[in-house]
Amino acid sequence: MKSFASDNYAGAHPAVFEALIQANIQHVPSYGDDPYTDRALAALQAQFGADTHARLLFNGTSANILCLSALMKPWDGVIAAKMAHINTDECGAPERVAGIKVIPIDTDNGKLTVEAIAPAVEHLQGFEHARQPKVVSISNVAELGTLYSPEETKALADYAHSKGMYLHVDGARLANAAAAQGVSLAALTSEAGVDALSLGGTKNGMMYGDAALWFGEAAEVVKAGSFMLCKASSMLGSKMRFQAAQFCAMYEGELWLECARQANLMAKRLADGLPETCDVAFVDEVGLANEVFAHLPKEIINPLQEEFHFYTWEAGAGDTDIVRWVTSWDTTEDEVDVLLAAIRAALGDEKVKKSC
Amino acid sequence: MKSFASDNYAGAHPAVFEALIQANIQHVPSYGDDPYTDRALAALQAQFGADTHARLLFNGTSANILCLSALMKPWDGVIAAKMAHINTDECGAPERVAGIKVIPIDTDNGKLTVEAIAPAVEHLQGFEHARQPKVVSISNVAELGTLYSPEETKALADYAHSKGMYLHVDGARLANAAAAQGVSLAALTSEAGVDALSLGGTKNGMMYGDAALWFGEAAEVVKAGSFMLCKASSMLGSKMRFQAAQFCAMYEGELWLECARQANLMAKRLADGLPETCDVAFVDEVGLANEVFAHLPKEIINPLQEEFHFYTWEAGAGDTDIVRWVTSWDTTEDEVDVLLAAIRAALGDEKVKKSC
Amino acid sequence: MKSFASDNYAGAHPAVFEALIQANIQHVPSYGDDPYTDRALAALQAQFGADTHARLLFNGTSANILCLSALMKPWDGVIAAKMAHINTDECGAPERVAGIKVIPIDTDNGKLTVEAIAPAVEHLQGFEHARQPKVVSISNVAELGTLYSPEETKALADYAHSKGMYLHVDGARLANAAAAQGVSLAALTSEAGVDALSLGGTKNGMMYGDAALWFGEAAEVVKAGSFMLCKASSMLGSKMRFQAAQFCAMYEGELWLECARQANLMAKRLADGLPETCDVAFVDEVGLANEVFAHLPKEIINPLQEEFHFYTWEAGAGDTDIVRWVTSWDTTEDEVDVLLAAIRAALGDEKVKKSC
Amino acid sequence: MKSFASDNYAGAHPAVFEALIQANIQHVPSYGDDPYTDRALAALQAQFGADTHARLLFNGTSANILCLSALMKPWDGVIAAKMAHINTDECGAPERVAGIKVIPIDTDNGKLTVEAIAPAVEHLQGFEHARQPKVVSISNVAELGTLYSPEETKALADYAHSKGMYLHVDGARLANAAAAQGVSLAALTSEAGVDALSLGGTKNGMMYGDAALWFGEAAEVVKAGSFMLCKASSMLGSKMRFQAAQFCAMYEGELWLECARQANLMAKRLADGLPETCDVAFVDEVGLANEVFAHLPKEIINPLQEEFHFYTWEAGAGDTDIVRWVTSWDTTEDEVDVLLAAIRAALGDEKVKKSC
Repeated sequence: MKSFASDNYAGAHPAVFEALIQANIQHVPSYGDDPYTDRALAALQAQFGADTHARLLFNGTSANILCLSALMKPWDGVIAAKMAHINTDECGAPERVAGIKVIPIDTDNGKLTVEAIAPAVEHLQGFEHARQPKVVSISNVAELGTLYSPEETKALADYAHSKGMYLHVDGARLANAAAAQGVSLAALTSEAGVDALSLGGTKNGMMYGDAALWFGEAAEVVKAGSFMLCKASSMLGSKMRFQAAQFCAMYEGELWLECARQANLMAKRLADGLPETCDVAFVDEVGLANEVFAHLPKEIINPLQEEFHFYTWEAGAGDTDIVRWVTSWDTTEDEVDVLLAAIRAALGDEKVKKSC
Repeated sequence: MKSFASDNYAGAHPAVFEALIQANIQHVPSYGDDPYTDRALAALQAQFGADTHARLLFNGTSANILCLSALMKPWDGVIAAKMAHINTDECGAPERVAGIKVIPIDTDNGKLTVEAIAPAVEHLQGFEHARQPKVVSISNVAELGTLYSPEETKALADYAHSKGMYLHVDGARLANAAAAQGVSLAALTSEAGVDALSLGGTKNGMMYGDAALWFGEAAEVVKAGSFMLCKASSMLGSKMRFQAAQFCAMYEGELWLECARQANLMAKRLADGLPETCDVAFVDEVGLANEVFAHLPKEIINPLQEEFHFYTWEAGAGDTDIVRWVTSWDTTEDEVDVLLAAIRAALGDEKVKKSC
Repeated sequence: MKSFASDNYAGAHPAVFEALIQANIQHVPSYGDDPYTDRALAALQAQFGADTHARLLFNGTSANILCLSALMKPWDGVIAAKMAHINTDECGAPERVAGIKVIPIDTDNGKLTVEAIAPAVEHLQGFEHARQPKVVSISNVAELGTLYSPEETKALADYAHSKGMYLHVDGARLANAAAAQGVSLAALTSEAGVDALSLGGTKNGMMYGDAALWFGEAAEVVKAGSFMLCKASSMLGSKMRFQAAQFCAMYEGELWLECARQANLMAKRLADGLPETCDVAFVDEVGLANEVFAHLPKEIINPLQEEFHFYTWEAGAGDTDIVRWVTSWDTTEDEVDVLLAAIRAALGDEKVKKSC
Repeated sequence: MKSFASDNYAGAHPAVFEALIQANIQHVPSYGDDPYTDRALAALQAQFGADTHARLLFNGTSANILCLSALMKPWDGVIAAKMAHINTDECGAPERVAGIKVIPIDTDNGKLTVEAIAPAVEHLQGFEHARQPKVVSISNVAELGTLYSPEETKALADYAHSKGMYLHVDGARLANAAAAQGVSLAALTSEAGVDALSLGGTKNGMMYGDAALWFGEAAEVVKAGSFMLCKASSMLGSKMRFQAAQFCAMYEGELWLECARQANLMAKRLADGLPETCDVAFVDEVGLANEVFAHLPKEIINPLQEEFHFYTWEAGAGDTDIVRWVTSWDTTEDEVDVLLAAIRAALGDEKVKKSC
């Protein structure tokens, strides 16, 4: 049975395997000086623009740290949502590895806005006893499954630039955000004024691998030192061709889109199929990616979890908790329907009338 | 044409691919809470002893940093050969990521001895204005292709323990060291008193993956915190099963040995086949792994490098430089013979008489 | 004219100078191996208990970092008020120097309570992808001039200990907190279950010098390594006797109390003398130390600041901002009265009726 | 009895005390925004040139770290003598606080030369798996009491600049180096092409305080961020006026020279007065500052140390060890003569004939 716990429970897409096998046939130089890495960079430039600079890494935490630290001085800080992955899910790796300070901002739905960050920026800039806000970091898809539109992104980028700051996107699920909105990856990043991007691979059908990308002027700033910053941060892979081959498989064509679209469709099927009384949480108008949050009566959660992997996201004060289901590139309609049937069965008639 | 530049130019062994394919068939939990990781840990315990604690990582630099930092306080230092990988080839990642200080020791052949390290240890221990030597780190295979025997390792371990210190082995090529001596992996590490081991995978036929291991009392010290130290150091993989599957392929049986033995045999064929006048350098009595260092006349090196990938290791003052050839798990007899023929041709008659 | 901007605008007390002169008469060993340091430690033990371990440092940021880092593993975090000095006024030195992560908690009056911190502690403890809350850090006097009573402190200590955590007090103005409540320094710290204390000196009449103290079990944990942690953090002074002599002057007798009492009295005189319409802000029932926050009409602030040094603390949405006045050990009644007269004059009749 | 163990056993010069007393008379802004700091910077610019940028700090380790880290990227390294203070006497603070990697170079007399460092520079520059040598750091006075002349300094500066590197001087005893050679402080630093200087104060008669200085282009690079780098490194003092007042006392006039000259004269008196058979060690032609190293028969060292504070520097293989005596700004002729008499008495007739 497939899991609804996280898209990193899924395996790798067959096309990714095929690319790995193709990349395995002979000796090539290590550390990125190989034709696969060249191709991967070309594929990323085709997606994001010719002025894209990239480093292929092993995981998303490293992509975040490299993206940020390449743009920050020791006295700079990064503005992020309080629940941002860099703030709460990386065990303080940004602090340990790179001395980064995160300045957390409260949000309702996981999304930053100019209004939400401006007070902190204005309070801190120029106050030289505090870290200087230098980067705004958003996650798209955000940690509550919500999405930033190109316009929302651009508004943040414009504000950041007006204050001498950069905008970074933690795009562990950027493909899902783009697929949900029917826009290109660039529309949500380089074309919207984003300066740095942690581009996810692992969660969207790769075996391993995420990348740090910088665009335009930020790319110019970072370019000369990024290889050594990567190495000095213990993030450099030797057989780089294998990360590169996966990025080629994913981004030379539209595999990224195919995988993300399937995951998103299954999330929509799940959300749509929930009993009406189960409030879906944190939905905003921009769209739905591959995560569904919903209120479930507390007493049915554990029994359901014995059958299906998924997490309780937030304990509620009343009768319900909020749970999170994540769909993956390989989730099928049948699997969603089995889950839905189980939810409906667990709710029963009287439950439905109560609170869910 | 295969490369003699480094064993990380080689691809992954077919059995490794097969294991990856097998591990890809369904959803499993991430971050190591999966049956493949359990199996990998069991395989490592079978190799190194039941009191082995391990973390599967992406690369060797991370393995070194995690091994060391888990055993060191902020005021501790690590004694290593001046040419040790942690001192010269990791772009200061130990310093940046973990604030580690390396105390380098001069060596003739890349190997530390009790005699070589005792003066530094005795000078520094108890002098509280200096980092306290807390770990001795050796590389086996060492950076000049030389090997530590079990006895040599034990002598260092005994000395380290007598001084309240730990012994760490950077075993990026430990399989080659064991194969060359016809001993087990444990004989060179856990059974010889070693406390921590960076166990290589990538260089010996894996696609990616190295591991940090601790034995006995050191394992007890490290165990409770190693997951979080790994995460806080940005070294945690989400789809851990894929690293685990490779370790299973390599260490459940004797694939590690088969791969290393082939590489070593090819190195021996190369060393044995060199014209007599080419002095093989840095050979000690313990054995030959998969690296051959030799003196070549300067004028033939560049032409040879146009045909074959290999590095000049050290510029000589006279007519010759020292070059390094590395063989891999997939190097063939034919490939060695082609290289040898080219060397002989390049030397020519009059060259042979001169200096090589 | 003396300043109301900060107590670090004040000079050193004459008795401190006298002690420095006495300590200057001959050669003594450096780095704390001198009779003055012995005396200072004895004085601190007399104040805080025999099981006190201390390091004399140069400044308060260093005291905070040393107190905390000595008790934290790389994967631990420190819970603090969002406006805590360690979070907002140290330019991220805890992050840079020691990789510390601060987990900020919103507060109304700058004070943490068990209720305020429990959700974060319970959410994070055991979730191994996040820093583990290991220390709760409070400032007494808090950043809004509010005070913790011994009981409030003990409640936090008890909770922290029940969760396997430590309680740290940033006591840059601990003397003022004690003087305001008529209790001993120990009553607010070691006797209330506090584990670590940054003990201020500079702000309360010393020329320079703050100290890191640990009590009881925490002292046992820290003792063996604190000298080297101090040195490795670049915080060790060579002519330590001069810091020690100042601590002797301050803590062998009651100079700390005399200085703090005078500052507090002057703050009370200022608060009491304000026009009734000037709401004093952030006052809680525990008492008033040496900081007064009050609402002033925006238009009178700049003119007043041209005559008197003080800071606008918080811009208000309406007609008033909140300003902060800090009194010092050497502030006189006359100086307060001059300020009060100027405030009254600036307000005028019609202003008083309006909003202040 | 004064000590010959270290110049940091001495107290502060009376003129320094006088300056502190003068600086104590009223309130002034903190953190360097005060007239004393302005004066101190002007005094330093008068000594070192108008394009000097400076930060006043508490201790020499901080000065070294700030000087270096302000000029280094995370992948840079600093070339220094193996026995340099930053390498062996700062408990790895550069590594911990700023992630700095020191690349140690063997020396005979503690002094670096272009010949000594060129192989490391040439080996490392452009090899992107190793820290890039970016700063050469020398100590003048060096750790063996030897001195760099202006010409020797300029040769290193020229070489460093030709390689895109900076030259840093650890000038904890720069005053002694200048006094010994009869040259200005600038002649040994800014005028010789030095880019950054840790300027000692504490060892030469101040109570506390050392400074980080940058000259010319390096000053331009560092200027905008140095305040915040200082704060983020936990090195900022609040009552900065007191450090500033001491620097004024020392560097507005020639007190630095007077203090250093006296210490040097006493060292010369000591060296000249030693029995001929006591080989003075590590002397080079540039001159003698305030440290004397000499061979003494092992059996007389302990008895002498019971009467006089001084350190054994290096254990000898034969009958003698090398000891170090350090004179201070307040060492008197009588004190030197008493020590000399004791040495002569301890040697006795037959000892003199033996080996010393």
